[in-house]
Amino acid sequence: MIYFNSDYTEGAHESILNALVRTNLEQTPGYGTDDYCREAASRVRALCGNTAPDVHFLVGGTQTNATVISAALRGHQGVISADTGHIHVHETGAVEATGHKVLALPHQNGKITAEQVKHVWQVHHEDDSAEHCVEPKMVYISQPTEFGTLYSKEELKALYEVCRACGMYLFIDGARLGYGLAAADSTLDFASLAGLCDVFYIGGTKMGALFGEAVVIQNDDLKPAFRYYIKRHGGMLAKGRLLGLQFAELLKDDLYLSLGRHADELADLIRDALFQNEIPLVMENRTNQIFCLLTEKQLQQLSEQFVLSVQDKMPDGRRLVRICTSWATKKEHVQMLIEHLNTLSACAGSNVSEKQ
Amino acid sequence: MIYFNSDYTEGAHESILNALVRTNLEQTPGYGTDDYCREAASRVRALCGNTAPDVHFLVGGTQTNATVISAALRGHQGVISADTGHIHVHETGAVEATGHKVLALPHQNGKITAEQVKHVWQVHHEDDSAEHCVEPKMVYISQPTEFGTLYSKEELKALYEVCRACGMYLFIDGARLGYGLAAADSTLDFASLAGLCDVFYIGGTKMGALFGEAVVIQNDDLKPAFRYYIKRHGGMLAKGRLLGLQFAELLKDDLYLSLGRHADELADLIRDALFQNEIPLVMENRTNQIFCLLTEKQLQQLSEQFVLSVQDKMPDGRRLVRICTSWATKKEHVQMLIEHLNTLSACAGSNVSEKQ
Amino acid sequence: MIYFNSDYTEGAHESILNALVRTNLEQTPGYGTDDYCREAASRVRALCGNTAPDVHFLVGGTQTNATVISAALRGHQGVISADTGHIHVHETGAVEATGHKVLALPHQNGKITAEQVKHVWQVHHEDDSAEHCVEPKMVYISQPTEFGTLYSKEELKALYEVCRACGMYLFIDGARLGYGLAAADSTLDFASLAGLCDVFYIGGTKMGALFGEAVVIQNDDLKPAFRYYIKRHGGMLAKGRLLGLQFAELLKDDLYLSLGRHADELADLIRDALFQNEIPLVMENRTNQIFCLLTEKQLQQLSEQFVLSVQDKMPDGRRLVRICTSWATKKEHVQMLIEHLNTLSACAGSNVSEKQ
Amino acid sequence: MIYFNSDYTEGAHESILNALVRTNLEQTPGYGTDDYCREAASRVRALCGNTAPDVHFLVGGTQTNATVISAALRGHQGVISADTGHIHVHETGAVEATGHKVLALPHQNGKITAEQVKHVWQVHHEDDSAEHCVEPKMVYISQPTEFGTLYSKEELKALYEVCRACGMYLFIDGARLGYGLAAADSTLDFASLAGLCDVFYIGGTKMGALFGEAVVIQNDDLKPAFRYYIKRHGGMLAKGRLLGLQFAELLKDDLYLSLGRHADELADLIRDALFQNEIPLVMENRTNQIFCLLTEKQLQQLSEQFVLSVQDKMPDGRRLVRICTSWATKKEHVQMLIEHLNTLSACAGSNVSEKQ
Repeated sequence: MIYFNSDYTEGAHESILNALVRTNLEQTPGYGTDDYCREAASRVRALCGNTAPDVHFLVGGTQTNATVISAALRGHQGVISADTGHIHVHETGAVEATGHKVLALPHQNGKITAEQVKHVWQVHHEDDSAEHCVEPKMVYISQPTEFGTLYSKEELKALYEVCRACGMYLFIDGARLGYGLAAADSTLDFASLAGLCDVFYIGGTKMGALFGEAVVIQNDDLKPAFRYYIKRHGGMLAKGRLLGLQFAELLKDDLYLSLGRHADELADLIRDALFQNEIPLVMENRTNQIFCLLTEKQLQQLSEQFVLSVQDKMPDGRRLVRICTSWATKKEHVQMLIEHLNTLSACAGSNVSEKQ
Repeated sequence: MIYFNSDYTEGAHESILNALVRTNLEQTPGYGTDDYCREAASRVRALCGNTAPDVHFLVGGTQTNATVISAALRGHQGVISADTGHIHVHETGAVEATGHKVLALPHQNGKITAEQVKHVWQVHHEDDSAEHCVEPKMVYISQPTEFGTLYSKEELKALYEVCRACGMYLFIDGARLGYGLAAADSTLDFASLAGLCDVFYIGGTKMGALFGEAVVIQNDDLKPAFRYYIKRHGGMLAKGRLLGLQFAELLKDDLYLSLGRHADELADLIRDALFQNEIPLVMENRTNQIFCLLTEKQLQQLSEQFVLSVQDKMPDGRRLVRICTSWATKKEHVQMLIEHLNTLSACAGSNVSEKQ
Repeated sequence: MIYFNSDYTEGAHESILNALVRTNLEQTPGYGTDDYCREAASRVRALCGNTAPDVHFLVGGTQTNATVISAALRGHQGVISADTGHIHVHETGAVEATGHKVLALPHQNGKITAEQVKHVWQVHHEDDSAEHCVEPKMVYISQPTEFGTLYSKEELKALYEVCRACGMYLFIDGARLGYGLAAADSTLDFASLAGLCDVFYIGGTKMGALFGEAVVIQNDDLKPAFRYYIKRHGGMLAKGRLLGLQFAELLKDDLYLSLGRHADELADLIRDALFQNEIPLVMENRTNQIFCLLTEKQLQQLSEQFVLSVQDKMPDGRRLVRICTSWATKKEHVQMLIEHLNTLSACAGSNVSEKQ
Repeated sequence: MIYFNSDYTEGAHESILNALVRTNLEQTPGYGTDDYCREAASRVRALCGNTAPDVHFLVGGTQTNATVISAALRGHQGVISADTGHIHVHETGAVEATGHKVLALPHQNGKITAEQVKHVWQVHHEDDSAEHCVEPKMVYISQPTEFGTLYSKEELKALYEVCRACGMYLFIDGARLGYGLAAADSTLDFASLAGLCDVFYIGGTKMGALFGEAVVIQNDDLKPAFRYYIKRHGGMLAKGRLLGLQFAELLKDDLYLSLGRHADELADLIRDALFQNEIPLVMENRTNQIFCLLTEKQLQQLSEQFVLSVQDKMPDGRRLVRICTSWATKKEHVQMLIEHLNTLSACAGSNVSEKQ
């Protein structure tokens, strides 16, 4: 079976494994106070235009989200998110476990707008009895979103301006950031993204690391005591150097973005094949995640050889299916998938178009 | 100024004040272990058809909701609610403060349906990676709802059956229960309601008590250690007898329901006057809360003499306004309001009807 | 049976009941925004030397402690307390329920010292890996303590100076404040106490109110958003005026302190009788709580007529017993107790002195 | 500089790195549902005498403790621990962050006894107003303890029997389990330890893995929904196979225990040298951690070449110092340390003995 269901099916890029093997018996201090973490943090800062953010390395995304959010908010404050946001639907209430409400807004293509955010803030603060409601204090977005779509520089700028005007923090979940920055239609790079938010993270787990997320804190108000929160949420790795080493490798030369580009380009090939075969895409994008609608029969046939991520059932019986490429995807596997898609065409493709 | 904005503008029914004065210097044990609490609990059980629920007395509604929900759920579980539910929008995240997510569903007239609930449960349990999501384990509804509407016996029965079939708890917030049970179109009484849920409470604060909510736990699984949770959430009143005394009075003879009837009937008079004057009602009901749309001008004129609860602004500029009657509302005040409404008619009424 | 087990066995001082009856059908806005709350707050400010604290009214002590502590601390911070502190031993983990650790220190007579507090702070901040530990940020003391003992003005000053030097908050639980300020050996009054802490509260529940605690926030850093925390912790009473009314009465003229004096003087009479009868006192004080050691036999005999609070069992089999007077204690009841104590003398008193 | 300060200064045992490299580009499902996790779980079960525990793999110790404790306890319940327990002093309140109180008991050599535990339980349940206190429901111990000492089989059996008799859970933190089981004076092996508790974990991070802790749940009551808690606490690694792979290697043949033996034997050599040089040991043990008292001068001299873990300052000015060996410690480094200790002898050793 060939896995196209997610971007965390393989281990790590070989340069990372090499570094682990090379440094294995070196002795370093623990908990992220070692030289590899310092080196990685310095690479992050360089990419972010040599501003002076605090940089911290955590193990995984859910942990990072809960840590950042609980470190930033007072108890009565909540975080605005798209209703498709990872923190709202796929983290088993990890944010609520820290006492904070996720204030969910209806998404458009996985995104929320500056207008929506401003409206929530205004409604709250115009209310005479605002203290009966959770105060919106942070905005959480994912770039790319959970559907692989991207905020444009203009959209991000508008969000950040509303946040600054309203005294709210903008937090960007970059679990798949590389696939976003490397996308053919991306209008953002590291430095411009870093300048348009209060805190974000550079995903490693889904981008060629064994694991790891690099948190970049731009806003001075969010810096104090962050290490306490990492520890408190179980995210302070004893052998912290493992995180430093991995990000030092990933952010060396152009590796991080080139891994993103690799996946995005292979995803484009698959998208073309889906289009050719009249399989409808849902929430189109140019990053590494493809969402399409397959009939049960198409799904069955593909599932003989490929593992896909099968999601919601549509009213017409079709399934929403996610196909993922990654930094590790082999081109020959993509070609096998495309050939398979082409063989589906005759029978199933016509059905789909009828149903549209 | 005459207040029609809420049902907690006055103190308490005179029989309650009398009881407080009469018993003031009696010495009783603390924390709800006194005879008045026992008497009140026994009255509750009698009303509930002499089943054997545990009965506890707490001070206020938000506290009661958080206590019941956190006592019932394990950490990873959440509570389903209408998106207009009090716990979702008006408790400053008190439920989230206990670590639990509110799983909000779109309301219809302030209510949710058995079908919606079942769907949420199925989607969760059919998911291969259900552990990435909050497990729905309790359903929270208000009777009457936050908009004064009522679940019929059939609707409640359907909800309860789904809950039992799915292993979920049904929890009814009865902060205004008396206004619901006494409504002209109510199809439920104490006993039938008590038999169609796992836990509910009989609201005192808005029903003629100084304060107080009587929690009735029907499901044996929810009984153990409940007093620990009351204490932990700051709801265990040192002079617990104050709660026992008040409910003993309220539930004596027909007092509780007669107070509800009083308010509902006065509300009906106001509703008639609104109808006569072509002021549109929103989410019609027969309980003590009236939601209507007023133009800014109508609102201004009424506000010279009456305090109303002004809520959302409509796209056409009109305001959603709540008018409340209560156990303490004076008939002459209602007549004054009706006369005032009649004087608005000529100018404003016609505008409204044009806009509909 | 006559109750001497606690100071919350009766209802409220008659002036409070009168005020409730007198104002019962007035209409007021809810949630503490009414004129009675304003009046009471103004009385509090006057007593505190006309500084400009924020004043809030909550229902009970456990609720107040959790609300103040969680509003003041960030997630990774904890609160220092004597290991006999109410928050550490008698609140069912209400502080931990808000995510904060109680950092317990060994008490001396129910008290902790400035030196102990400073030591904890130093050990924490001298540690290279401080972030692995909870940061001490607040000091919680009770005045009088849970054992009825008092901090002197010098002790309180020393604590407050350490707190200010270390950037920690000093929080005084004044659930029985009146019994402390009125004590024969008190060196503090309202104004001096208010000037030696960041936040404290004036207890009502145990001092002649039906219920209620008045929080006085001196430190500007602790003022923002406090009402959100009251609501979030279920402490915002719908009919908030009930709290305002009660404190307006209690703090009128000298009532609050005179109620304290009444109880303290009666307690002194009992202490004298215990001394006469060679019943040993534990942690002596001049406030309304008396802690003494009784043999099982003495306890049995007293328990035929009096309800006392029986606590720990000593290694020699005697019981630690609390005897409480209150604002409502009748002098004739005290005389009956004293007579009863005198009859115990012959047989039991001698036993006790042998065991000492 | 040579590090003897902790047992997490190096990477991983070479067999683990080899396995990572060998399997790197295999595709596996995520979140611990892969074959390597299954294989590792099966090895765990075999070691535990082929009972049928649930086995889960988490990343780090603090995370594991918070996850196990919060999954086991209801909100009002707390966990008993030695006052030197890791959860009480070195996890930044991670347990309190989940709402639970740590009920700390005075330790003896880092341990608590069955008698202490039973006493706490009795005091709680004999109290008429038990609901005002946190209910003790779990006992947490570390094997070896934070001071490297060991519970004997008899001590453990006594604790477990009390727990079962009282309806409490016994949870063993095995972050350094291998160093304990391999100790010259250990009276426990995997199977006997597994049979004397409700849940424990096999530490990987400090025992030759890059990271990872294997939780073994023996008590059926603790099994349901555990994966929800892992996710909720940010401990569910996307590439879960990394954990499975590492434990599959560590638990193959005798590797895990042989790594423990290696460290323990080297620690014995250092202990002998300390004894020879009259440097006093604190809380003696035969595992990989050595606690001794060094004068400032001794510490300075050693610190020129070695990194040690410097802890508390004694009243006489000496420092409590931890010296750690590990699975990776080189014998030649130990010999260098011993030689260095021998050179300290003349001057400093005599001082120490004077002070004792």
